[in-house]
Amino acid sequence: MTYCVGLLLNEGMVLLSDTRTNAGIDNISTYRKMFTFEEPGERVITIMTAGSLSTTQTTIARLQEAIDDPDATSIMTAGTMLQVAELVGDTLSTVSANVAHKLGERAQSARASMIVAGQRRGGEPRMFLIYAEGNFIEATADTPFLQIGEHKYGKPILDRVVTPETSLGDAQKAALLSMDSTLRSNLSVGMPLDLVVIETDSCRVSRQRRIEADDEVYQKMSADWSVALRHSFANIEVESSGDEIPGYSAA
Amino acid sequence: MTYCVGLLLNEGMVLLSDTRTNAGIDNISTYRKMFTFEEPGERVITIMTAGSLSTTQTTIARLQEAIDDPDATSIMTAGTMLQVAELVGDTLSTVSANVAHKLGERAQSARASMIVAGQRRGGEPRMFLIYAEGNFIEATADTPFLQIGEHKYGKPILDRVVTPETSLGDAQKAALLSMDSTLRSNLSVGMPLDLVVIETDSCRVSRQRRIEADDEVYQKMSADWSVALRHSFANIEVESSGDEIPGYSAA
Repeated sequence: MTYCVGLLLNEGMVLLSDTRTNAGIDNISTYRKMFTFEEPGERVITIMTAGSLSTTQTTIARLQEAIDDPDATSIMTAGTMLQVAELVGDTLSTVSANVAHKLGERAQSARASMIVAGQRRGGEPRMFLIYAEGNFIEATADTPFLQIGEHKYGKPILDRVVTPETSLGDAQKAALLSMDSTLRSNLSVGMPLDLVVIETDSCRVSRQRRIEADDEVYQKMSADWSVALRHSFANIEVESSGDEIPGYSAA
Repeated sequence: MTYCVGLLLNEGMVLLSDTRTNAGIDNISTYRKMFTFEEPGERVITIMTAGSLSTTQTTIARLQEAIDDPDATSIMTAGTMLQVAELVGDTLSTVSANVAHKLGERAQSARASMIVAGQRRGGEPRMFLIYAEGNFIEATADTPFLQIGEHKYGKPILDRVVTPETSLGDAQKAALLSMDSTLRSNLSVGMPLDLVVIETDSCRVSRQRRIEADDEVYQKMSADWSVALRHSFANIEVESSGDEIPGYSAA
């Protein structure tokens, strides 16, 4: 399994992915699921991947091959971020159809999805969720985050705190706490984590880091959040509503 | 969709279900998913249901028919709670196989699952999760809660605060906050809610209530929890870890 989340904010974009892959519960590995393509000041694109490792690795390799080929249209030369999303979608769809064909009855396991985030000079920062069939949706001010993989455990915190006005610092915190809830509930999502921040109009990676399992700052944040949640829980008063069956008095 | 959660604690059991059913997103109804069978002081059993309404209604109706038949073994006469779980499992499995047969290619939509919780005089309080095939698992001190339906959104809060030592008041609060996160994230889970509390060794329903959408106590709890979460979030400090890429400084 996988959990990747991307936040699209006025100040910029925050992207966070885990690195755990598994082929059955007894075969677990660490693979990078976040790939950054950058021509600083001109264009920056980050792609995060979920689903079949065979499909996603081949898709990223083909996108890279096109970048290396001076005669090909690539995500680094496409005219707009929309065209970048279409290019990634077409490549992903071709590769996953190919892998599905090889898998026959197990074609379902060829599926993969991606989050593509980036900005080119003169354009807006944009973020897309690309499905296995190559179609996609885009993050908007109403829904300023996209998730792929094991998305449910980490969604409530994002729903409550993330808006386009959220600062980049708070957005990193929200993404990490969203990941923290997911790590606790699904063993197939695992450390280390990859984090990228792209400030609006910089057209470059502003911050990039790998957060290891023994990272003290992360561990402290995670522990503080547990304490804060339990403290909040203890302080919520559920008064008896006064009817004759005290349905949920806190006594 | 559905969300039902049952907590098995030293002090007793707390059971909470929503009431929304849908046959497609354009056909939404309210149906009770919690059924209580009681001979006060002797035996109390609460069953919560998720999945195909056609399967669950028929299963409950058959269990009721057996109770009404003086010659049949029913959940009210079975010797132990384990035998009750087996009886519910056998009935559910027979009914769902029958509905699946009628559905042919759409057999998958006949699936249903149930939580069965109860105590008979002289026995222990026990709680089981019954799968469509009739097999089941039981809540234990290590995992003192069971969920059916849309379980992921509401699991993090339970993971963090529920142990067998949790009081009945706190357990109701935890169940309601777990439901609150689910209601926010999945529109196909909906109010009103049904809540039942069974105190250990009472062998009767100690509290039972339906919580309507306009319930002021529930609304206040939900609003207070949102405020507390946002407050906790604002107070979590994520310091820069001092390396040269300030990966997640909160600034």
